[in-house]
Amino acid sequence: MTSQAVAYFTEHGSVEAVNARIGAGCDARLALVMSRLVHHLHAFVKDVALTQEEWGLAIDFLTRTGQMCDDKRQEYILLSDVLGVSMLVDAINNRRPEGATENTVLGPFHVDGVPEMPMGTNICKDGAKEPCLFEGVVTDLQGRPLQGVRIDVWSDNEEGFYDVQQPGVQPEHNNRGVFVTGADGRYWFEGIKPVSYPIPDDGPVGQLLGRLGRHPYRPAHMHFMVSREGFDTIVTHTFVGGDAYLASDAVFGVKASLIAPFDPVEGGATKWRSRFDFVMNPRDVV
Amino acid sequence: MTSQAVAYFTEHGSVEAVNARIGAGCDARLALVMSRLVHHLHAFVKDVALTQEEWGLAIDFLTRTGQMCDDKRQEYILLSDVLGVSMLVDAINNRRPEGATENTVLGPFHVDGVPEMPMGTNICKDGAKEPCLFEGVVTDLQGRPLQGVRIDVWSDNEEGFYDVQQPGVQPEHNNRGVFVTGADGRYWFEGIKPVSYPIPDDGPVGQLLGRLGRHPYRPAHMHFMVSREGFDTIVTHTFVGGDAYLASDAVFGVKASLIAPFDPVEGGATKWRSRFDFVMNPRDVV
Ligand SMILES: [Fe+2]
Ligand SMILES: [Fe+2]
Repeated sequence: MTSQAVAYFTEHGSVEAVNARIGAGCDARLALVMSRLVHHLHAFVKDVALTQEEWGLAIDFLTRTGQMCDDKRQEYILLSDVLGVSMLVDAINNRRPEGATENTVLGPFHVDGVPEMPMGTNICKDGAKEPCLFEGVVTDLQGRPLQGVRIDVWSDNEEGFYDVQQPGVQPEHNNRGVFVTGADGRYWFEGIKPVSYPIPDDGPVGQLLGRLGRHPYRPAHMHFMVSREGFDTIVTHTFVGGDAYLASDAVFGVKASLIAPFDPVEGGATKWRSRFDFVMNPRDVV
Repeated sequence: MTSQAVAYFTEHGSVEAVNARIGAGCDARLALVMSRLVHHLHAFVKDVALTQEEWGLAIDFLTRTGQMCDDKRQEYILLSDVLGVSMLVDAINNRRPEGATENTVLGPFHVDGVPEMPMGTNICKDGAKEPCLFEGVVTDLQGRPLQGVRIDVWSDNEEGFYDVQQPGVQPEHNNRGVFVTGADGRYWFEGIKPVSYPIPDDGPVGQLLGRLGRHPYRPAHMHFMVSREGFDTIVTHTFVGGDAYLASDAVFGVKASLIAPFDPVEGGATKWRSRFDFVMNPRDVV
């Protein structure tokens, strides 16, 4: 029987059996990514000797995670975040020389279309108890100030919610601003000292965190997207130094270089000042 | 700053950063499975240097796969099937000694509650063009016939559909039967010579198969679930020898030992005869 010559699926040869099926017409990159996925996925199953019951729990978890998603909620990105995959993909795709400002996760709360504002604008529209001045300078790797840099910032309010999480409750574009640097490369604006907040934990990912003995909190941070023609866009946060969750960010976003001072300011409306300088890396010209 | 002593997430130390977070109260098996999952998942991302765009495509694919699922359709099991994971989990959990009948995937079309029938019953209720006699003997590893073995069988009809895929079109329990062996261990019943059929390919998994240059077909097979107290339940198929898809089953279910003869029968209503003997492995007493 000619079928005896065929390499049927076996436990030992499982990876080869699956990958041998990829057709000649398959896109080369897709073929590589999928064949390596099969390699690592089978290695995992063999490594832990996954039981039939655990396989069933995994199928159910993956299904529920997909079904939790809608236009407001992306539970699979959350899963990627809490497993460190989002940070890993960001790290691999944004390797930069020493001295350049590091990236961290974008997060789900960025909004396009926030209007540009004059430097110094107060972006907090719902009444700050802890007003904070953010300031710094944007330079290239040689320390030369960069003009025309777009600085897009966003944070939660003092209850720990972004405006888009509370439509109709918070003013539109609350704690969001867009600024463009002048010849001195400087930026400054007023906001609040951000507060730590939990990622959405009422879905399958929150249940998983709970079972792993992990909390859902992120340390307080201000989001920055810093961009200019000819340079790598910096998508990052500055983290509030001293925050209780710095060492246990639920999504692994903290890097030592991104922890910023938040210094108390005496005797004025502004209670805090946070200075953070950005260093941009020239974009590879392809 | 004490935070400098903390092991923040880095590309190189990504696995350790994530797994260090598992809490002391976490179930030991869950901790092992998840930490090895993170290990292999990060190894995959690093191996292929997954791009941000590919990550986005993966998030979208996983989301759509979950959203394709309902009470009738389980697209994640289908994904597990076409990546060889279902067969691998089955293989790992059903290792048997030489000579015992091997397992293959259960598939989504098994139905509970089919009534027991007398040996020899014709299970095809919608008119067979290719009637087939199935017969054989069930023994233990020493070749002794086993009495009281429950033999639960199901196949598609000659259009390639199971009854549950066409409610109201096919008669209830079409091509399904349950038989119990007597003292001689023999079984026999009438059905059809099964036909090859495609797995559901109108969803994300079908699109993936298409892009990989793979077809969605399964070689023709009769499902068997063979069970008796004190023995491992055999969940398997017999495959129609000579089927065009034997070497390329979309779900990798074929094993050489499961390919059965389907011999033509001259001069009667029954056109085919397929003999297959089952050998049961005693269950480990725990
Ligand atoms: Fe945030
Ligand atoms: Fe089937």
